[in-house]
Amino acid sequence: MFFLVHLWLNSLMPSSLVPFFSPRGIVIVGASTSPEKLGYGVARNLIQSGYQGAIHFVSQKSGQLFGRALYTDLAQVPDPVDLAVLVVPNTAMPGAIEACAKRSIHAAIIVSAGFREAGPEGAALEKKCLEVARKNNVRLLGPNCIGTLDTHLPLDTTFLQPPMPAAGGIAFASHSGAFCAAIIDWSRRQGFGFSQIVSLGNQADVNETDMLPLLADDEHTRVIVLYMEGVSDGIRFVETAREVTRRKPVIALKVGRFESGQKAATSHTGALAASDIAFDAAFAKAGIFRADSAEQMFDWARALEVCPLPHVGLDRPLRGYSTNVAVLTNAGGPGVIAADALEANGLHLAKLSDATEKSLTDTLPPAAGIHNPVDMLASASPQNYADCLKLLLDDSNVHSVMVILPPPPMFTTESVANAIIPIIQSSKKPVVVALLGSELTANAFERFTQAKIATYPFPERAASALGILARRAEYLDSGPLTVDQTVHHPPSTVSSSTDELLAAYNIPIASIKLARDENDAAKIAKELGFPVVMKIASPDILHKSDIGGVLLNIASEAEARSGYALLIERAKSAKPNAKIDGVHLQHQIESGQEVIVGVVRDPTFGPLVMFGSGGIEAEGLKDVAFALGPLSPLEAEEMMRKTWAGRKLDGFRNIPAADKSAVQDILIKLSRLACDHPEIKEVEINPLRALAKSAVALDVRIKTD
Amino acid sequence: MFFLVHLWLNSLMPSSLVPFFSPRGIVIVGASTSPEKLGYGVARNLIQSGYQGAIHFVSQKSGQLFGRALYTDLAQVPDPVDLAVLVVPNTAMPGAIEACAKRSIHAAIIVSAGFREAGPEGAALEKKCLEVARKNNVRLLGPNCIGTLDTHLPLDTTFLQPPMPAAGGIAFASHSGAFCAAIIDWSRRQGFGFSQIVSLGNQADVNETDMLPLLADDEHTRVIVLYMEGVSDGIRFVETAREVTRRKPVIALKVGRFESGQKAATSHTGALAASDIAFDAAFAKAGIFRADSAEQMFDWARALEVCPLPHVGLDRPLRGYSTNVAVLTNAGGPGVIAADALEANGLHLAKLSDATEKSLTDTLPPAAGIHNPVDMLASASPQNYADCLKLLLDDSNVHSVMVILPPPPMFTTESVANAIIPIIQSSKKPVVVALLGSELTANAFERFTQAKIATYPFPERAASALGILARRAEYLDSGPLTVDQTVHHPPSTVSSSTDELLAAYNIPIASIKLARDENDAAKIAKELGFPVVMKIASPDILHKSDIGGVLLNIASEAEARSGYALLIERAKSAKPNAKIDGVHLQHQIESGQEVIVGVVRDPTFGPLVMFGSGGIEAEGLKDVAFALGPLSPLEAEEMMRKTWAGRKLDGFRNIPAADKSAVQDILIKLSRLACDHPEIKEVEINPLRALAKSAVALDVRIKTD
Repeated sequence: MFFLVHLWLNSLMPSSLVPFFSPRGIVIVGASTSPEKLGYGVARNLIQSGYQGAIHFVSQKSGQLFGRALYTDLAQVPDPVDLAVLVVPNTAMPGAIEACAKRSIHAAIIVSAGFREAGPEGAALEKKCLEVARKNNVRLLGPNCIGTLDTHLPLDTTFLQPPMPAAGGIAFASHSGAFCAAIIDWSRRQGFGFSQIVSLGNQADVNETDMLPLLADDEHTRVIVLYMEGVSDGIRFVETAREVTRRKPVIALKVGRFESGQKAATSHTGALAASDIAFDAAFAKAGIFRADSAEQMFDWARALEVCPLPHVGLDRPLRGYSTNVAVLTNAGGPGVIAADALEANGLHLAKLSDATEKSLTDTLPPAAGIHNPVDMLASASPQNYADCLKLLLDDSNVHSVMVILPPPPMFTTESVANAIIPIIQSSKKPVVVALLGSELTANAFERFTQAKIATYPFPERAASALGILARRAEYLDSGPLTVDQTVHHPPSTVSSSTDELLAAYNIPIASIKLARDENDAAKIAKELGFPVVMKIASPDILHKSDIGGVLLNIASEAEARSGYALLIERAKSAKPNAKIDGVHLQHQIESGQEVIVGVVRDPTFGPLVMFGSGGIEAEGLKDVAFALGPLSPLEAEEMMRKTWAGRKLDGFRNIPAADKSAVQDILIKLSRLACDHPEIKEVEINPLRALAKSAVALDVRIKTD
Repeated sequence: MFFLVHLWLNSLMPSSLVPFFSPRGIVIVGASTSPEKLGYGVARNLIQSGYQGAIHFVSQKSGQLFGRALYTDLAQVPDPVDLAVLVVPNTAMPGAIEACAKRSIHAAIIVSAGFREAGPEGAALEKKCLEVARKNNVRLLGPNCIGTLDTHLPLDTTFLQPPMPAAGGIAFASHSGAFCAAIIDWSRRQGFGFSQIVSLGNQADVNETDMLPLLADDEHTRVIVLYMEGVSDGIRFVETAREVTRRKPVIALKVGRFESGQKAATSHTGALAASDIAFDAAFAKAGIFRADSAEQMFDWARALEVCPLPHVGLDRPLRGYSTNVAVLTNAGGPGVIAADALEANGLHLAKLSDATEKSLTDTLPPAAGIHNPVDMLASASPQNYADCLKLLLDDSNVHSVMVILPPPPMFTTESVANAIIPIIQSSKKPVVVALLGSELTANAFERFTQAKIATYPFPERAASALGILARRAEYLDSGPLTVDQTVHHPPSTVSSSTDELLAAYNIPIASIKLARDENDAAKIAKELGFPVVMKIASPDILHKSDIGGVLLNIASEAEARSGYALLIERAKSAKPNAKIDGVHLQHQIESGQEVIVGVVRDPTFGPLVMFGSGGIEAEGLKDVAFALGPLSPLEAEEMMRKTWAGRKLDGFRNIPAADKSAVQDILIKLSRLACDHPEIKEVEINPLRALAKSAVALDVRIKTD
């Protein structure tokens, strides 16, 4: 199982963060005897949590709280103590941090608000806190967070209404404290529990990236879920997450999908690459599953927590992975809903073996449906459920099973649960249950929850859960992405021409020469070899064909001369104020398929590579795919597979096939080029012409800082 | 309000169906004193339901049941009685139906199973029941159904475990009895109730289409939801639903999305039109909202049941409808989730007026977010919620509001509910509540449910609910679809040429002539006028360009001669066994934009019209939209708006605009042509060339039965 290797990356956890997760003793600075104060709630929760280490309270007034002394000075607090929870007013925070350091406490959770989230003054205060912390080697969680929860240690540094959420295997880190609190309450009736909960607050110091390996190291954590509103250091986030996701599954709900993207982009790539697309690409590269909704995130987490992964990779060389699911139901309707939902989640209905269908026939009444979905009819008994489930799990064509369980008319739902729980628990294949109902299924729900079996109120959500199990299995099976690490020594972009730069990466380009007058044009055309293409050369005219600034099939020196004159005239007429450098000439390449390959530097994640339908329709069709550079061969292949432009390279009807591997190669090399040259803001080959046995860049545009 | 006009279509309810909905007296035939029998459950439920009419029992043995006499013969049952619930064994059913007629009962619900669903013998039995019923003027609901429920009358003819579901305004008709039963149990904890529930079973007689106007006529029903596995008479269904949806909203969950489509299609239109696409088109034409999941169906139904509709139509002439939503929250995270989800549902964050923002500033603490989403901060009191909600509802830029309510740290959730409920109830704008949590929000949930306010556990689902309210308002505002009813008298397709047929509908076509030898080709080319296009003419070569079977720019008689020879040679070499009729010639039309326009006859719904990107890439790009014929101008416009091919007709970069209204006109006319000629199975114009001031069909293919 993938979660047995949890000690791999222990070295990634900096020792400075250990006290947040396994403190020997905790002091609450700002503990209060007034029940309406946060400093009371934190104290109450820490004691009620059953935390086994030392618990100390510091308050302005001495006295007693929950039978413990209230110290008025942090210096008085006895050993052991290595974590502070700071609930003092915001202006007192820098002093409190300094006091922590003096008492040899180097980890502090700042619960108090009134910092960056409250305006410029708060931001200045937060900055000061961080300065004091850095100077004194104190690590900070927060400010403006609701603290941490560990259901297994146990430990509760929040002020939320007890009891703690149920113990489980889901670790949850959140940029929003309120969302955290709401999820904790919501989870109480959902049949799952948490291992760790971390509210990250303003992330003055410790952020989501720091947390990832720590949560992965937790032995009780089987799956990590993140609620994200952004990321502090995108590149470090992706690198860290790539390591973590090899060990434990990570699911993210990233909000802010519709925020405006990069406005100033001038290339097609730039115009199409919104910042949310970069997040999609980052999650894909990191192996993080991006959820569309909070409910989906926890639907997925529950399955990943408790289910084994399905077998995958059956017909891998041919058409990718395939996960075949058997559906067991006592009613036709929900079975059809399930079949639809499986397809929608990229799964397939398993074709049952003849032997399985024969056994089902022997077991079930004649009117039952023995083809998948297996419909046992409304009369199905607990024994029928158990027998048929065993038969399905024993069929090697079946990779996973969805059991559909509406309240059976003749039996209690609980009796069916009792019959199938041992089978699901001992199965090496994943089984999820669509448990339809509420009052009549309440006891069964409790039984499944206790047995750590994932249930969902509808087949659609159960199918989504089976889908994520398949994706996780595929991810682990496909292995880490390998990236070409060849070191290139290209000329710098500042001093070199585009030709030289692409040549350094072995990207074929149809050489472009600038003619500054008619005679020049004729001479260059002859050197390049007829036929040639002529294009207006002006920094102010980006979309040349828009103004008729491209001439094809120039076949003689005379045509080159008159072509020059024509292009200059058209440019002057279309853009009278444009600076015109002359005319570019290029040997005309044979016809082929045109695609676009570009890279735009995302401010958060770095080089974001685009592939898609080329030419002027790139933006209109939006037939494009994105991935973060540097690309592995698999990623480049995936980008082509996702687009019609890429699939068409295999040939379609009378369109002959083109050299797909040459395109893939150029995608990888261009991504490398962009990674090697941080000064390149955008680079775009449009079009890249894919021929039968090669691919050639016909037009390259590079924008540097 | 739209639901006040519920008496409009009363004439649509055939009097024969009245007893199913308001029987004067009911007899249960097959009532049983054994609690494990269905005949006991039905009797128990009918009595417990509080049904006010007469209740009678017929059984094999005389005696008593629930203090009532058990008659052994239906003939003995006294008046009043006009509805029978038949729970006798399947083989006794034809006799039971006949006995009903003899006792002057002309409506029967057949609960028993063992009919069509059980195999050929059952199907024969079902057919016999229907024959007996038709002969004796008895209407049948079922067989193999779980009966009907009316929470207001009240009435319960099911055998499901009591109590009845909560009373409400949602009418639910289902093709699956098991799904029906599961939904009833699930609904108990969801905060909504039903007006009517009808389990349709095998639909030997009464089907979902019969039910629609009946459910719409019910004064307690505000929204109708359908669980559908198919449709008996597609065209009647669409016609009936179009009327019903003008009065009350209808939502459908249609399963079987991924069943295989029409396999034998030879055109692009046929290949792209799967049967599920026809359902999408049918629902669109009927004004039915198609849900993606059971949960979504009821999320929508709840909002449509209790909320007023938002104002729409603000910037209609420019870019369609726009619904602007204000979000009120006490936490930033869920506010961002809401903003994302609103965009994803086609809604927009309202821009608040300066006056509103000023008032919010005066009301809220300085750190609060006064721009939409309005973040009142965690300290928000019930009074803050109430004051801010009022301000938002008073802003004319706001069309609807989502209130986000996680458990407030300093107040009970219930106290917030109490503060805002009167405001929501008296508002003419829709307000939905995202109520995040479970234990801490349980009391508030009860309060909202009692107050008939729609709550959702997450902002994503609340946004989806606001989205359906906007769609409903747009649907009602846009008015009924108007279709050109001009009667054409075209020549019959069997005897006429394609040219004549299209000419009868005023669809411009570049005339095509067949040449049978080289001299013929030269002569025809001269008549058509140079340049001409030449295409191989063979019934066995469908995709001509695949084999190089098309020649352009033929400019002289000599070229026409040699072109003829070349095409024949290419065809023979590519398909040696193909029957070759000769070569088609056509005057070459100036260049323009090429689109595809086609119609395929769907076996269920009739002419299914397609519009999209033309040429050989139609299937590859899948840039196509579908609608059911005959098209209204609005539908034709919508098809163009949905596709890149259609949007491009407005011009894009250096692609000049083309005559969009000519294309729209041809779409409408072709749909009319297909409707007028049931013998046409497929008709496709590919390409239709859109020029600056017209559009011309260049290639038309018609397939008849």
